[in-house]
This record gives sequence, structure tokens and C-alpha cells, in this order.
Amino acid sequence: MIGYSRRAALAAAALILCPGGLAYAASGQDIALKGNGQGAMACSACHGKLGEGNQEVPRLAGLNAGYIVHQLVSFASGARQNDVMGPIAKALSDTDRQAVASYFAGLNPPEAKTGGAAKPDLIAAGAVLAQRGEWTKGVPACDQCHGPAGSGVGSAFPRLTGQNASYITNQLLSWQKGDRHNDPLGLMKGVATKLDKTQIESVAAYYASLPLSGKATPAIATPFRTEAAKPVSTPAAFTPPPESAIPNNEFGKMVRLGEAIFTDTQHYAPGFVGNSLQCANCHIDRGRLANASPLWAAYVVYPAYRSKNKHVNTFEERLQGCFRFSMNGKAPPAGDKVLVALQTYAYFLAKGAPTGVSLPGRGYPRLKKPAKLDYAHGQEVYASHCAVCHGAEGQGQFSAQGDTVFPPLWGAHSYNWGAGMHSISTAAAFIKANMPLGEAGTLSDQDSWDVATYIDSHDRPQDPRFNGSVSETRKKYHNSAMSMYGQKVNGVVLGENSPPSGTVPAPH
Amino acid sequence: MIGYSRRAALAAAALILCPGGLAYAASGQDIALKGNGQGAMACSACHGKLGEGNQEVPRLAGLNAGYIVHQLVSFASGARQNDVMGPIAKALSDTDRQAVASYFAGLNPPEAKTGGAAKPDLIAAGAVLAQRGEWTKGVPACDQCHGPAGSGVGSAFPRLTGQNASYITNQLLSWQKGDRHNDPLGLMKGVATKLDKTQIESVAAYYASLPLSGKATPAIATPFRTEAAKPVSTPAAFTPPPESAIPNNEFGKMVRLGEAIFTDTQHYAPGFVGNSLQCANCHIDRGRLANASPLWAAYVVYPAYRSKNKHVNTFEERLQGCFRFSMNGKAPPAGDKVLVALQTYAYFLAKGAPTGVSLPGRGYPRLKKPAKLDYAHGQEVYASHCAVCHGAEGQGQFSAQGDTVFPPLWGAHSYNWGAGMHSISTAAAFIKANMPLGEAGTLSDQDSWDVATYIDSHDRPQDPRFNGSVSETRKKYHNSAMSMYGQKVNGVVLGENSPPSGTVPAPH
Repeated sequence: MIGYSRRAALAAAALILCPGGLAYAASGQDIALKGNGQGAMACSACHGKLGEGNQEVPRLAGLNAGYIVHQLVSFASGARQNDVMGPIAKALSDTDRQAVASYFAGLNPPEAKTGGAAKPDLIAAGAVLAQRGEWTKGVPACDQCHGPAGSGVGSAFPRLTGQNASYITNQLLSWQKGDRHNDPLGLMKGVATKLDKTQIESVAAYYASLPLSGKATPAIATPFRTEAAKPVSTPAAFTPPPESAIPNNEFGKMVRLGEAIFTDTQHYAPGFVGNSLQCANCHIDRGRLANASPLWAAYVVYPAYRSKNKHVNTFEERLQGCFRFSMNGKAPPAGDKVLVALQTYAYFLAKGAPTGVSLPGRGYPRLKKPAKLDYAHGQEVYASHCAVCHGAEGQGQFSAQGDTVFPPLWGAHSYNWGAGMHSISTAAAFIKANMPLGEAGTLSDQDSWDVATYIDSHDRPQDPRFNGSVSETRKKYHNSAMSMYGQKVNGVVLGENSPPSGTVPAPH
Repeated sequence: MIGYSRRAALAAAALILCPGGLAYAASGQDIALKGNGQGAMACSACHGKLGEGNQEVPRLAGLNAGYIVHQLVSFASGARQNDVMGPIAKALSDTDRQAVASYFAGLNPPEAKTGGAAKPDLIAAGAVLAQRGEWTKGVPACDQCHGPAGSGVGSAFPRLTGQNASYITNQLLSWQKGDRHNDPLGLMKGVATKLDKTQIESVAAYYASLPLSGKATPAIATPFRTEAAKPVSTPAAFTPPPESAIPNNEFGKMVRLGEAIFTDTQHYAPGFVGNSLQCANCHIDRGRLANASPLWAAYVVYPAYRSKNKHVNTFEERLQGCFRFSMNGKAPPAGDKVLVALQTYAYFLAKGAPTGVSLPGRGYPRLKKPAKLDYAHGQEVYASHCAVCHGAEGQGQFSAQGDTVFPPLWGAHSYNWGAGMHSISTAAAFIKANMPLGEAGTLSDQDSWDVATYIDSHDRPQDPRFNGSVSETRKKYHNSAMSMYGQKVNGVVLGENSPPSGTVPAPH
């Protein structure tokens, strides 16, 4: 085995820098096809020559290399328990793991035959869970982390597209049972615990059924019967109608267009968006979830006077404000189809809600202001609880096709200095009630305040009302301890060097 | 007496054509100041030299001459019972009555001292009744017939401005008791029967308190506690909030602006109205009354698909349609303050109403279509039940200042051929549920259908969608037995010679 390993290392001629000095390492392909000669058998024995997997073992081809490495580390440490993979992972050096991971990450073999086709009903039910989640139980849509059609996002959220069904099922059951616990923030443990067996099988069948092209499938086209969303911790007085209640007529088409704009604002409201956000990033469960600024609660309290612009705003003008500030874009003109569609969608969600009544679940529940806002502690909270999704630099994460999966929280692609979320109190309230996604309420009030302080102490696109002077603009629009605009942070006055507002920056 | 009468006749030198031949008649002034020498004493003995009245007898100065004549005829016939006036009226010839009526109609003396000032609370309560009515009991606002500030309209609706309080009180009591029954369509009998003694005193005090300038007082400025309107015959499930609930802030200002536009569209939405109508002409009780297309019921069912323009309309666009068609004007641009204010007013009225639910009382209750629509019978119904208010030629009636009191029903100043009300079925439904004002339900279904047929068989401003061909425009927008557009009536094809749409015609 040693001889083979050396030959492989020489053949690969890969010069790797190791802590102890220079050494030749086995190529990823060699390890995959022949083993590392140090006790790790060939991966291909089980996973197939191209990592295509089969009915029992997972497809490795196309998985993120960092994700594969993390799994091998977990198998070795026992964080992920598997009698076969444990010893193999232990026998692989760090260098071996990186090499073999990179090898499989770069492959894209055709679909393996992983068993008979699942029943269409099962797949359809899985599609709902994958694309909508089940927010009545606090379960986010799988795609909210794993990307459109489970295409995979970064090293923490593996590709699910075309993964074999029995493997997905087994992993979800392992998280439920506690056999596997190498997931970031315990997110998968949390999700799996809330699912029943049928749901697990259905979502597994759905992802297994997806073509490996990697292209996102269109949004759910046929109206599934889904339960309307209710918050887990704070029951709302109001439940919006299920998606299945959208009628199949011209009105229903407008509702669906509004929903499409709301969830994929980039593509459905082109020209009006100047960052990488979607409406649904801050309005969880497509504007349905209480305490996540649900559309139904907002719709019924307009027209209303807003101190922000000091006059009575219709709901339409309120939407225009979202585009101008939160979306860092341009307000669609009054009467524009984008606004009509969003109004119609909100109206549909508000069916039966009393006009002019502030409903429980409206906005984000305000938090009592703490004695102190701690930037440094916020930075720690961010690193431990937020960075895995939103990126170490708040830059967000995107699918391979460029779709926003995790929104950028600062920088040129995020909300601008005029958006409500730039206020620390608003951000803290949102975070406490909704973050981390699917694990809402796990952060303390102080953690929420501090991480909001940290996030909102970073630069972002200029306030569109900027008049050339940061100090004057602060005085006029930001005269509050809750706004960091115009304040000095890490030696820089925020707002002085902000990217311009309302312009679409270069893609990520 | 004869000698005196002859002298007066000669002095006046008024040549009057009498059925029996030529004769000199006494001047109005002579009769007023000295009597007619035929048994009628001088009016001035009780009413004062300038007809100014006093605490006991009515002010005659400034009353409509036709109205005064009608009263004298009534006193003579006993339709109006009065021991003093009965014999006097009998002693006046038709010519005398006309002369003395014209005399008093042309006078405008200063206010008579008719007693101490009434309590402000009583006047304020009377103002509500006078300007708002009490639609919970089916009582229209007095001003809806008597004109702004009771300034008087035509010969059927006398001026109340500055009339003495005890006289108004006594007349209302007389109608209640049945001592007086010379009112058109029994309107005053109907109204008086629904009032209690305090209401009668308050409304009398209000009109007595008004200055004689004849200028309309501003709309009620302070929020009075008024009951919200409910229909008399068909209880609605929903009651809009009282006017007193309008808050005294920026939002409340917008609500009030919307109400002002709704009730005085001519003045508050200049440039957008091309006829003499107000929104409140078809939406009784300022958009509050069920079965009179109440705003609260409309607000909660938009956005909605409309077959009229074949797309989903927001409530704003629906309002634009009202301006374009019913108001024969120009639609305010999307986002215009006129539309924001009307939306805000409708939203206020809808407070608590369930979003997306079609409420009882919405629109006008549809009538079952009869076997036959009878134009000739409709003409008779119109003459007997409608002409007193809307004029023999459907031309409407206006205050001296030009304010619309009774809307024109056809002709250049009415709704155009694109308005909903041009449809016979819509007009019949409106009429049955709401006309005559304060006497709703007194017309049979067949009467309502026939009079609607008659009204909507008259020409009116062109359909704004007119493409140059009446027959093509009919085919495209009016292909229904309920539309007379493009149909031949009395030898004329309706629409062929219509006044242009969207232009403000010369004032009345």
C-alpha cells in the first residue's frame, strides 16, 4: 500500500506545503479510485468511479469541496457517525481529504440509477416543503439554505439536486435521532426534529427527482394545499389564505405575479432593484409569517401617516418606499404593474383581515432597549451565528446561477442607509424574532441588539435623500441613537464613502 | 276699499293678461302694504313691511315667488290649514298672489330680531341634522333639498336660512300632525314623522342662526357625534365609524379632504370633473349608506378584475374610472392627492370591515328584470316623482351660487355614456333602493325599471371610449339590452349627437 501511495504521489507530482515540511501527496483521483495506501480504501468502491453514488450511498460528484472535507473531518471525529466512513476518514490526512474532495467536486457524471421513480404525489408534497417550508412548525423551505432546486450554497449547505432519496432520508433520520450532529448552528437537527416520516420521504423523493442540470426548476405552478403560516412562539390572530386559494383567473394571475415579484424581485421587477435583496428576505415565508412584517398586517393599516416622509401614504407609496430604500432601487411609478401586482398579492393574503386594525404579528415585535449596545460582542455573535449563511464579510451567498440565497447584510449589494433595517432597533427586532432562520428565538435580546449594532455599523449604499453633506443628512433623517449613519466606526465616518444609492452594482 | 284698490292699480300701471280679458291688477307692494281691497288685509301687518317676519310669523323676504304662490293656493284650498291665512288667501286672486309673491321674493331686508340666541349645543346638533341628515332613520340632510345652508332651491324647496325658529318648529309639527300636507311627494311629512321634538327644535335653531348673506357656511368643522348610517329597510352587517372618530391629525386631515372631495367634487377636484355631479349624488349619505354603493363595501373588494376594462384594477384605478365616466371628466393621475384623499376616506369608512369580503349592502341591490321596459310609463313616473327635484328636462337644480343640489340626470351636465348609471339595470337598482330621496322603496320595481328606461333613453356626453363610430362603440362596449347607446329613441340614434366627453360645459 505504501508503494502504491508513493507511486500515486509521484504520478500526480503535486507539491503540497505541509506543516512539517515538503511532501508529495496522493492525487484526489488516485485516492478516489485506488485509496490512499494508508488504510483508506478507494472511494469508488462504494460511491462509483465518478462519484455518482447509488441507491445506498450518496452521490459525491458536484458537491462543494469544503463540504466534503468537513464531512470527512466529522466522520473522523465522530461528529458524524458511520461505521464504514469513520475508519476511512481517519486514514486520510488533511491533504488527502482536500485532494479527494476537490476531485469529486469537479465531476459531473450523468445521473445514476438510484431506484424506481417515486409517486408523483409524494414528489409534489416534497416540492412544497422544499420550496415553501412549513412555517406553521417553524420549518424554512429547504431551498432557503440549499439554494434554488437544492443546487447547493457554499461549503455549509450541500447540493441536494439529484441526490439519492434513501441517502437524504437516512440523513434526516440521523439528525432526528442525534447520530449526526455536524450541522452549523444545529440547523438540520432543528429542522429534522420538526418533520414527520412522510415529510422526510417526500422531500427526499423530490430532490432525487430533480434533473442534474443544476438549473432551478420554476416555482410551484399548481396550487398545492398548504397550511397557512403561523408563528411558532407567538400565535397570530390572523391566518392568511392558503396558496391553493389563489383562483385560476385573471385576478389569480395578478396574485401570482405579485408573489413572484415578492420572492424573486431581482427578476420580476427589473430596473427597480439596486441590490441583491428580495422582498421575501425580510418578510419571511413570502410575506405570510407573523412577526416577520407580514404583508397581510401591513396591507390593512394603509393609507397611513408616516413620520418618515411626513404625509399620508397609500399602501402603494409604502411599496415605493421599499424599492427606494430597502431594495436600494428606483420606485416604480404610481400605477405600475409591479405595484399593482404586489398590492393584489398583499390584498389576497389579507383576505378576511379587518381594515384599519393593527393585528397581532404586525411588523417585528419591538425589543426593550438595553443599557448598552456592544459592537465587539455583536461581532462575536455574528461570527458564531450569522457568518455561516451571510458570509464572514456580510456579503451574502448566492447560487451558481447568481440567485440570492442569503442576502448581503452590508456593502454595495445590501439595503441602503435610508432603509428601515439600517436602524439598529428594527434590525434587532427582526433578528430576535426571525434569526437564525428556522432557529428563531435562540439568540438572547442582548445578542440581538449587539449583532444588529455590529451589522448596522458597516457601510452600505448612500441614503437616497443624501444632500451632499453626511452631517446634514444625519441631522435631518438620522437624528437617533439607533442610526449609525454619520457616526465614526473603526476610524471611518459611515456615509462619507458609501457607494451611490439606486444603482445596480456589478454582480457578485 | 274699492277706491283704494283702483288707485293702487292705476299707480302700478301693471297690465296683466287675465283669462276673462284685460284688467288692471294691484301691485304686489300695494297688496303687501295695504291689502288688495277685496278682503285680503295687508301682509305687512303681520309679516312686517319688508316681509322680515318676527318671532311668530315667517320671514317672506327672499322666498321663491313660486313657493309663496303655492302656499297661498294651499291656504286657500285647505291643503295647508291656518285660521288667519286661509281667509286672506281666498281673498287673493291668482294675479294678486303672483304679484305679492314676486314683491316679497325680491326683498332682502336685514335680519329681524326673532328672539334670543339659541344654545350653541342645540344649534350644533341642528347643524348635523341639516348637513348630514340621520340616515339611520332614513332622514336626508335638510340641505340635500333646501340647498347649501338652506338657501332654497326652486319653487318646491323654500329658503330656510335665517327663517325664524318657532315658525320652522311649528311647520315640522304640523307635518307630523297632518295639519299641513302641501309638500311634494309627501317628502316633509315623511321627514317630520321621523324626527323627535328635540331634533325639530335643534334644526329650527340652526337655520334661524344662519346669517342672511345667503352664502353657504363651511361644512361641519368640528367632529360631531353622529350615529353611523344604516339602511332603513335592509340592515347591513357593517357600520362605518362615526364622523367624530376622524382623528385630529394629518391622517384625519386627509380623511376630511377625501370627504370634502366626495361631497363637493366640483370644488375640491377641479380639472377632473366635466359635469355637475358630486360623488355623493349616487353614493348617498357621503358614501356611508348601505345599498347606495357605500364606499366601505367597495374599498374592501379591490384590487379586483373588472370586465369593463379586462384587467385587475386597484381601488385607485376604480376611482379613476368614476372620474372618467360618472363625472365625465379626466382621471386624476395615479398617486394624485385627489385619489389619495378619496382612498383614505374610503379606508376610514371601512375600518373594521373584512378585507376581500363582499359585504351586505354593497352596490345597489339588483332587481329582477321585468317582462317589459315601458318608456311611456317611465315618463309618467318621472313627471310625478322625479321632476320636482331633477327638473322637467332632467336638468337638475342648483343653488343660487351654482352648487348642485339635485343632479342633472341627462344632457351635457350629467354622467356620460360610459358611466355605470347609463345602464338601465344599474339605474333601476339605484332608484328602487334610494329614490325619491328619503322616500326610498315607495316606487314599485316596475316603476323603477320604467323610469330608469326613460332617464337612460336621453342623450348625454359621449362615451370617452368612442372611436368615431356609434355602432362600433356600441358593439364593443354596449352590447346589452340594458344600454340605449346607439339605439333609436324618438327618431334619434343616441350617441350620434352627444356632447363631447370630458369637457366642462358652460355653467347652468
